[in-house]
Amino acid sequence: MKAAVITISDGCFHEKKEDTSGRALHQILTKNKWVVAVTRIVPDKIPPIQKQILELTDHGEIDLIITTGGTGLGPRDVTPEAVAPLLEKEVAGLAELMRLRGVESTEFAALSRSVAGVRNRTLILSLPGSPKGATQSLQAVLKVLPHAIDLLQGRTEHDSSS
Amino acid sequence: MKAAVITISDGCFHEKKEDTSGRALHQILTKNKWVVAVTRIVPDKIPPIQKQILELTDHGEIDLIITTGGTGLGPRDVTPEAVAPLLEKEVAGLAELMRLRGVESTEFAALSRSVAGVRNRTLILSLPGSPKGATQSLQAVLKVLPHAIDLLQGRTEHDSSS
Amino acid sequence: MKAAVITISDGCFHEKKEDTSGRALHQILTKNKWVVAVTRIVPDKIPPIQKQILELTDHGEIDLIITTGGTGLGPRDVTPEAVAPLLEKEVAGLAELMRLRGVESTEFAALSRSVAGVRNRTLILSLPGSPKGATQSLQAVLKVLPHAIDLLQGRTEHDSSS
Repeated sequence: MKAAVITISDGCFHEKKEDTSGRALHQILTKNKWVVAVTRIVPDKIPPIQKQILELTDHGEIDLIITTGGTGLGPRDVTPEAVAPLLEKEVAGLAELMRLRGVESTEFAALSRSVAGVRNRTLILSLPGSPKGATQSLQAVLKVLPHAIDLLQGRTEHDSSS
Repeated sequence: MKAAVITISDGCFHEKKEDTSGRALHQILTKNKWVVAVTRIVPDKIPPIQKQILELTDHGEIDLIITTGGTGLGPRDVTPEAVAPLLEKEVAGLAELMRLRGVESTEFAALSRSVAGVRNRTLILSLPGSPKGATQSLQAVLKVLPHAIDLLQGRTEHDSSS
Repeated sequence: MKAAVITISDGCFHEKKEDTSGRALHQILTKNKWVVAVTRIVPDKIPPIQKQILELTDHGEIDLIITTGGTGLGPRDVTPEAVAPLLEKEVAGLAELMRLRGVESTEFAALSRSVAGVRNRTLILSLPGSPKGATQSLQAVLKVLPHAIDLLQGRTEHDSSS
């Protein structure tokens, strides 16, 4: 299954910071038999974030989009505001599960404004920007992602979770 | 107190599948002293789902509406999109509690897009379609339902939870 | 850091009930080195609630607004409906964490419709109206509040939670 990793960070976009989180997510996905077909770095602004999401979901070739960054409370953190309006279906349980596992490790994970949902049969997850927050969030839901993709693409019948 | 159980399933509506979940919910409710006054089976389409919700909440005779089915990620799963716009008050905590207890059993419960809320003094819960998902979700909140009904009908004072 | 405590209660507003919850929150905040710069009591009506929130967030002098009351399921409980439309950023994880810690103590905490978010660099938390519900909710998030304020005011870099 094909994934895209979008790093949302002014610092990385302007090459003042290394994209540690994007690389860490890439590695976890590859280890778990995902093909990371696309990686992008965009600044913390709503239009470029939405442009990437729209492009990557329009053709139906990407099964999973993972964004990292911009989910915090800072003035420049706008990822949820960019992603949520593009979701046709919200999957609140995935965002809840990422934070639930997060707060088991540190209560500051409650400050992550991660959202999750579906657009045009692509699953979209917005993860925190820090390497630790991003990788912990992905690990929290990694096991259910293949089944989620099967479900949203109609490749499987309703099951015990739906 | 009076409950309605609405099964949302193309398969059950077209009599290709037995309504196992609807019957299981009926049984749990009856055992817990609820009167199941109405049972319905509707297809996975927004208009018939909304029609049932509107009819059952307009007269104020039903205290609790439980739907089962259509909360997953599949292309035909539209229950949250049908139910959420009709809620005057969302009760996110009930949906969270159903998923929280669910993920303690299987992480796939995070994929349930259950919503909960109030319309015209009727509590509405949308449960997953599988017998296991539906019954586990109901069990997770069963204990608090009578008090929730008392509160939303104004029969009791604010208490420690409100 | 400066906090405001708004008690939302018809009973307290009309002086038929003592504002036990407001006083309890005041005490916890003061003990934890917050300056409670403003306390108010408003009735359970959307316009006066929104008026207070708007006044207290317009000048940017208050870092944290805590409301208590009106988060239940009763016909007069309208705090989430008053507060949510004023939030520029929702912080779902804080509301989830308050309910998560709540249900560890009593499952009735699932009925709290607390919301949390940011308006004009002020963090806003809506807590239940009962002394027990209000204080437990505040205790659940108290540790992360100073960091949340730093983040939303841009005084700190993105960290492991954002």
